[in-house]
Amino acid sequence: MNVTPVRTVGVDVGGTKCLGVALDQDGKIVAEQRRPTPRGPGSLPQLIDTLAALIGALGPYQQVGVGVPGLVNREGVLRSAPNLDGVADFDVAGLLGERLGHEVDVDNDATCAAAAEWLLGAGVGCTDMVLVTLGTGIGGGLVSGGRLQRGTHGFAGEYGHMVVDPAGPPCPCGRRGCWERYASGSGLARLAREAAIGRRADRVIEIAGGDPEAVRGEMVQQAAREGDADALAVIDEFGRWVALGLVNLTNVLDPERFVLGGGLAAGADLYLDPIRAWFRELIYQPELRPLPAIAFAKWNERAGAVGAALLHSAHEGAEP
Amino acid sequence: MNVTPVRTVGVDVGGTKCLGVALDQDGKIVAEQRRPTPRGPGSLPQLIDTLAALIGALGPYQQVGVGVPGLVNREGVLRSAPNLDGVADFDVAGLLGERLGHEVDVDNDATCAAAAEWLLGAGVGCTDMVLVTLGTGIGGGLVSGGRLQRGTHGFAGEYGHMVVDPAGPPCPCGRRGCWERYASGSGLARLAREAAIGRRADRVIEIAGGDPEAVRGEMVQQAAREGDADALAVIDEFGRWVALGLVNLTNVLDPERFVLGGGLAAGADLYLDPIRAWFRELIYQPELRPLPAIAFAKWNERAGAVGAALLHSAHEGAEP
Repeated sequence: MNVTPVRTVGVDVGGTKCLGVALDQDGKIVAEQRRPTPRGPGSLPQLIDTLAALIGALGPYQQVGVGVPGLVNREGVLRSAPNLDGVADFDVAGLLGERLGHEVDVDNDATCAAAAEWLLGAGVGCTDMVLVTLGTGIGGGLVSGGRLQRGTHGFAGEYGHMVVDPAGPPCPCGRRGCWERYASGSGLARLAREAAIGRRADRVIEIAGGDPEAVRGEMVQQAAREGDADALAVIDEFGRWVALGLVNLTNVLDPERFVLGGGLAAGADLYLDPIRAWFRELIYQPELRPLPAIAFAKWNERAGAVGAALLHSAHEGAEP
Repeated sequence: MNVTPVRTVGVDVGGTKCLGVALDQDGKIVAEQRRPTPRGPGSLPQLIDTLAALIGALGPYQQVGVGVPGLVNREGVLRSAPNLDGVADFDVAGLLGERLGHEVDVDNDATCAAAAEWLLGAGVGCTDMVLVTLGTGIGGGLVSGGRLQRGTHGFAGEYGHMVVDPAGPPCPCGRRGCWERYASGSGLARLAREAAIGRRADRVIEIAGGDPEAVRGEMVQQAAREGDADALAVIDEFGRWVALGLVNLTNVLDPERFVLGGGLAAGADLYLDPIRAWFRELIYQPELRPLPAIAFAKWNERAGAVGAALLHSAHEGAEP
C-alpha cells in the first residue's frame, strides 16, 4: 500500500522527549531519532533548534509534520500547551518552516495519532472513525465522511472536557464532572481512591504502600490482574464511564469504529469487555443499529510521530 | 446563487402532515403542498400513495428528497419512527423510488433541516456547522469539513440522548439524564414544574390553571415575557442546560456556528442571551479560542421540506 507517494518525516513533541520517525512510501518506519524536549521559560528557540536537528538526522524527506501537545490552530500555531513550560501562542509551523525552508504540517498530537490509526493502524478503511486517547487526561481525533476533521479552528477532538456530570468532582479546567475526571488514568486512580475510602480496595491500597492518596491507575490494573474482586469492581466502574463517553460520541458521530489509545491501552485486556458491555447497556436503541467496533490502537508510543509524518496526506483527505 | 442546477422537490413527513415544496434553481420556493400523514397500523402503503400524489402535485423535478422523523439508515430505510404509528424498517427510498420511477434521497428530518440551514439558511458559508433542533425532544445534523455528515449508518446528529447527568431524571429511552430531559420543550416544562414544587413559579402555575402538572414550555415563555422573575430564572436554568450540551458538542466538533431550530426557536429572544452567557462560562479555555457563533434557524416549519429538496446536492458534498 502506498500511503504517501513519498518519503515523509514526523516528529511528536512530548513533555520530556521529542520522537521522530521517517516513513518510506509503504508506511514503514525506516529511521528513528529521539532528543530531550527543551524545557523551562525561554526554551522556545531551543525547541526549534531541537526539531531542526532531529529532522535533519532523519534523512531526506518530501513531507514533514510535527505533533504537539495542546491546542493547535489551523495555521499550525500552538495556542496553549500546559505540558510544555513557557509555550503559548508559538508559531511552530511558521518558525520551523522558515528554518527548514520547507512547508511543515503541524497539528495536535492526538489528531496525529488519529491520522496514524486511520491510515496505517486499527482504523484502516473506515470512513468514520473516532480515536480516543486515554492517558493522564483524554484527547482524541476524528475522521468523518472519509476525512480527518480538525474543526473550524483546529480544536476538534477535545473529548476530555465533555461534561458528563455537572455536579461531579472538580476538574483542573475549572468546571465539574468533565469526562476525563472519570475515564482517564487519573480518573481510574480517583475511582480507586474513592473505593478505598469506602474500604472496598484493600489490595489496591496495599500495593500503594498503605496510602490511599498514593494510588495510581497501574496499581488498580495490577490488583485486577491478580483477580482481586474490589479492583475488578473499580475496573468495571471505569469501563462504565469510558462507555458513557463513547455513547455520547456515538450519538453525535455514529462512527464505524472507536480506536482507544494512550497510556491506558496497556490495560486493554482488562477494560475491553466491561467497556463493550456498558456500551450496549447505555446506547440508544441498540436493537435498531449496528454498534460501532471498539478496538485498541495499533500504534502506542509512536502514534504521534507516525501520524505527524502522515499529516500532509491526512489534511489533503487521502483515502486509506 | 445556484444551489442546485435544477428544479428540486422535497417532502417533510411529520407526525400529522406531510409538507412538500418545489425549489427553483435559485433555491426559491415555487410550489407548496400539504397532505395529512396516514396513521395507524397498516398505513405504510398509504404513506407511499400520499407521498407520490403530493410530489406529483408539485410539478416537474430533476431531484426529489424526503425527510422522515426517526432513525434512517444510509440506504434510506426508516428503521424506527416512534411518531409514525406502525412504521419500522420501512424502505422509503426503495418503495417510493419504484413508484416514481426516479431516484429518491431519504434522510432523517433533522439532517434535512441541517442541509436547509447550511445551503440556504443561517449556516451559509460554514465548513463546520451544527444544527440542533430544540422541540419536544432534541435532534440535529452536522456539517464537518464542508460536507453534510451522516455517520457510518446514517445516525449521526442524535444529540438528544447524550447523557449529561447519569443520575438525572429518567428518559423514555430507558436511561437517565439524557440532554433532552433538560434542553428540549419537555425539559423546559420539567424545569418549570420542579420550580413550582419549590414554590418558585407562582405566575407560571397561574397560567397553567393552577395545576403544576399542566405546565408546558410556552407557559414559561409567556410568564418570562411578562417579566416574571421566577420564570426568568427557569429560562436561565434552561439556558445553562442548552449551553452545557453545546459546549460538549464544541469539544467534539469545534464548529464555526451553531444553528438552533425546532419549535423552541420561537422563544429565541428569551434564550439567546442566557445560552451565550452560560456557554462562555462552561467552555474549556474560552480565552484561547474563538467561540462559535450561536444563531437561530432561518427556516422554521419548512426546514425539513426545503432540506429534503436539497438532499441530493448535500449528500454529494455541494459547496454552498
